[in-house]
Amino acid sequence: MAGVTPLLKDELDIVIPTIRNLDFLEMWRPFFEPYHLIIVQDGDPSKVIKVPEGFDYELYNRNDINRILGPKASCISFKDSACRCFGYMVSKKKYIYTIDDDCFVAKDPTGKDINALEQHIKNLLSPSTPLFFNTLYDPYREGADFVRGYPFSLREGVPTAVSHGLWLNIPDYDAPTQLVKPRERNTRYVDAVMTIPKGTIFPMCGMNLGFNRDLIGPAMYFGLMGDGQPIGRYDDMWAGWCTKVICDHLNLGVKTGLPYIWHSKASNPFVNLKKEYKGIYWQEEIIPFFQAATLPTECTTVQQCYIELAKQVKTKLSAVDPYFTKLADAMVMWIEAWDELNPSGDESAKLVNGSAK
Amino acid sequence: MAGVTPLLKDELDIVIPTIRNLDFLEMWRPFFEPYHLIIVQDGDPSKVIKVPEGFDYELYNRNDINRILGPKASCISFKDSACRCFGYMVSKKKYIYTIDDDCFVAKDPTGKDINALEQHIKNLLSPSTPLFFNTLYDPYREGADFVRGYPFSLREGVPTAVSHGLWLNIPDYDAPTQLVKPRERNTRYVDAVMTIPKGTIFPMCGMNLGFNRDLIGPAMYFGLMGDGQPIGRYDDMWAGWCTKVICDHLNLGVKTGLPYIWHSKASNPFVNLKKEYKGIYWQEEIIPFFQAATLPTECTTVQQCYIELAKQVKTKLSAVDPYFTKLADAMVMWIEAWDELNPSGDESAKLVNGSAK
Repeated sequence: MAGVTPLLKDELDIVIPTIRNLDFLEMWRPFFEPYHLIIVQDGDPSKVIKVPEGFDYELYNRNDINRILGPKASCISFKDSACRCFGYMVSKKKYIYTIDDDCFVAKDPTGKDINALEQHIKNLLSPSTPLFFNTLYDPYREGADFVRGYPFSLREGVPTAVSHGLWLNIPDYDAPTQLVKPRERNTRYVDAVMTIPKGTIFPMCGMNLGFNRDLIGPAMYFGLMGDGQPIGRYDDMWAGWCTKVICDHLNLGVKTGLPYIWHSKASNPFVNLKKEYKGIYWQEEIIPFFQAATLPTECTTVQQCYIELAKQVKTKLSAVDPYFTKLADAMVMWIEAWDELNPSGDESAKLVNGSAK
Repeated sequence: MAGVTPLLKDELDIVIPTIRNLDFLEMWRPFFEPYHLIIVQDGDPSKVIKVPEGFDYELYNRNDINRILGPKASCISFKDSACRCFGYMVSKKKYIYTIDDDCFVAKDPTGKDINALEQHIKNLLSPSTPLFFNTLYDPYREGADFVRGYPFSLREGVPTAVSHGLWLNIPDYDAPTQLVKPRERNTRYVDAVMTIPKGTIFPMCGMNLGFNRDLIGPAMYFGLMGDGQPIGRYDDMWAGWCTKVICDHLNLGVKTGLPYIWHSKASNPFVNLKKEYKGIYWQEEIIPFFQAATLPTECTTVQQCYIELAKQVKTKLSAVDPYFTKLADAMVMWIEAWDELNPSGDESAKLVNGSAK
């Protein structure tokens, strides 16, 4: 990268939730150092997080979150990496990349270090194709195109809102699968980026995720998890379900595939099982809810869509568990907090209406 | 393969449409020789097709098709590789693999010859997952599984009806793309098999295609193309659109990805343009038609679904061009011919109802 200005240097923040020293950044230094970091410290705010020298960052702990959001701070999870979404809210940049602090630089099949951030940016800067399936994967990639039978009217694609990256080594499995396959490692490098079709919900993992904050930011709420909540490890899933429904409604694209990061360490499956078990049966009802969810045409901004979705969550999921009533209220609170912190407001609406900044 | 019985040796036919000598089979000998071939000769029936020695085959030319089908032979295209579907109809096997005679054995990234047929069989013998998206691709593959957030109730998957393979070297582009990018070659080996989600139509290419004839055979009609028809090169597309709608209705899966074959020679883009140009604007209306098509719950066999789809084609697409009236009639004729040649009848119905043979 010597001499080359990194892509989107002044337009992207890297958001990292953490409870520990950020030594993992050393490995990312060549790729992350040009960018601004937003570190969201989880747990005890009196602990000191050490950030390797040379990085440009701001750090928020629970006291900061409480001070900045006041009573609305209750919509931000505590003792769960779901707190990362506070970083999306305080960022003023157009793009966000978020990564877990146990994720390292992976190597491609030639042995070269993968610049994950660069691939996310490429994904976000090129269109998506949710309206028809392309069998050769991303048609905008070098050496690829639309195959025979792809409607010409759809070849411009739609703006990309989300870039979902994958993981080599430790795959993102739930606790039961971890328990059954403790030694399974993901060694398969699939050299593809693809758009998830319109109408198809997917399990979004927050470990290695890029998105266009202007286009979809307010939908990237990671819910109520961890301390005081009956559930954990569904924060990114929740965000993914909501985001995909809203992207489909607003004609925005979601890509998955490259880039890979190296996920170093499996979390404890017993702890995970405790966090997940309600989610494992709730998701049998939640997913059909999101698969069937539709939004009225009057909803033209992400905020409007999200508020509408919160209403539907309250009406239709509260029967599953009272938790969803509380979550629906937190969703509304999140949007209120977002709009307070981002008073110029509705970038997403402006963009959807064609006046991108 | 020495000493090992090839998979499904007595349950699979290889269908090859051709107008020339089948020298390409030499390269496939180690993989295809154990299987029975059904060769459908296109064009002048007085020409003699030479098949390399040692292959077990039956060959049908136009005279045979006319003799066997009588007046219903008019539903089988002439001077177009769409004639291949006659081979599906006369086969008595459970599985079909069809390949073009300009497709050769590709190599994987390690330089090893790819046994395309074996990969298709693996795809067809393992379930599909059309009801929810798995970000690590085929969850049934060695070293992979369902990711966190995948509903447990859907992890059994559904029976796989179609395995759509891809092409290295010459990609399957339409004439305009061929003209614009004459030198583009597909060199990217994407090591993935994935299920195309329910509700998502796709452009199915007939060059390298496997399917379960018992489950979906009667939907694999390649339409009216070539001699006397206003269109060509949409035979596989037509079959793919119909097949996907019916698979979605009957809860069957369609996979795409591996295996690759080596597509040796780009067809003439000027000739292709002539064949395709009506399709290129018709598809702008045909694809939305198929995307919106739904079938009544009373349709429980492939034949019933296909007859219903023929009705809808006649009602809704005849306005696009009178050709679709003729095509709708041919669709019905195809099913009548299928049922005559396959009097034991409704294998697919039996299977869907759970009594697989």
